Amino acid sequence: MSDRYRDLSPTTLLSPVPVVLVSCGTAEKPNALAVAWAGTVCSHPPMVSVSIRPSRYSYGLIRESGEFVVNLPSAAFAKAVDYCGVRSGRDGDKLAACGLRVRPMPGLNGAPAVEGMPAQLGCQVRQVIPLGSHELFLAEIVSVRVREDLFAGDGSLCLDRADLLCYSHGVYQRAGDALGFFGWSVARPDVLARRMAELRSR
Amino acid sequence: MSDRYRDLSPTTLLSPVPVVLVSCGTAEKPNALAVAWAGTVCSHPPMVSVSIRPSRYSYGLIRESGEFVVNLPSAAFAKAVDYCGVRSGRDGDKLAACGLRVRPMPGLNGAPAVEGMPAQLGCQVRQVIPLGSHELFLAEIVSVRVREDLFAGDGSLCLDRADLLCYSHGVYQRAGDALGFFGWSVARPDVLARRMAELRSR
Repeated sequence: MSDRYRDLSPTTLLSPVPVVLVSCGTAEKPNALAVAWAGTVCSHPPMVSVSIRPSRYSYGLIRESGEFVVNLPSAAFAKAVDYCGVRSGRDGDKLAACGLRVRPMPGLNGAPAVEGMPAQLGCQVRQVIPLGSHELFLAEIVSVRVREDLFAGDGSLCLDRADLLCYSHGVYQRAGDALGFFGWSVARPDVLARRMAELRSR
Repeated sequence: MSDRYRDLSPTTLLSPVPVVLVSCGTAEKPNALAVAWAGTVCSHPPMVSVSIRPSRYSYGLIRESGEFVVNLPSAAFAKAVDYCGVRSGRDGDKLAACGLRVRPMPGLNGAPAVEGMPAQLGCQVRQVIPLGSHELFLAEIVSVRVREDLFAGDGSLCLDRADLLCYSHGVYQRAGDALGFFGWSVARPDVLARRMAELRSR
């Protein structure tokens, strides 16, 4: 490992960031937008942030309805996600072009979820903050659906096994090997051994 | 793949999220906090968000100085990052306990960067928004340093090769295999072939 550094001009280098498919509109006329400028911002209430350029077609739809769904895609959807990031809903139904279908999302008035995605978060906008190129939507998570095959026999959710996507400086990557669990650095030896065995076996 | 879903209570399930080490204080008295509730929020100006509970020791330090550094850790630092997430700087020097050292960060008045991290982003706080359990710090990236070994011979930055960390529902994961680049779904065949070969070879 080098200890030498190169200074760059200020730029958006935080990595890896999630890549999600944000669906909006209605079940009859849905749209979806790939977003990498997304994050969790609060635990109680559970809230996400999503940054969108006002020029995007989805921006107006979400401004109007005040709701959207954050769909977490697996690597199998990587190309469809990229397509929904570079093309505009103004020019046609991107979801249909990718062979994706939608379904109603509980807790929302109309914004649908994208079928087949490992997890879907129904979100209601609470604040919109203009920052410059992007506006920041702060939204409360009001409903959550997770695909049945992602639960272990004991009911625990194994999201690290969903083959989710992340994004580093223009490159889509798989979320890969599990390294440890929250608190592993200070866990008692017996807890550490049991939990790490669980992580590796599931 | 199952098409059946389980409904969960609303919770913070967006995944994977980045795991960063946020350093603050001064070079003489530094502190660092592991943060998974972080994201990019704007491209121009380049901005990040970091959510922190007001009870955390770093919260007061950042509130007072208005600055911090977002350090992107590689998998080799995973245990140190976890330690800096579960322990408090009130009880001692966490960085020293992990064998980590700091160095001055350009563009900031005092908040230092953590040595050895693949990338360091110097950040100045622009807004603080209370949301509930967490307060959201919106900060402009004013300086960026990247380790020399992460640049290819042609000068391009290969951050997907930095072995960065992400976090999914309580589990630390490696950012793994590169799947494609932004725009790959609509790239011309010759561009696609060239760029994918570059991705795989670097």
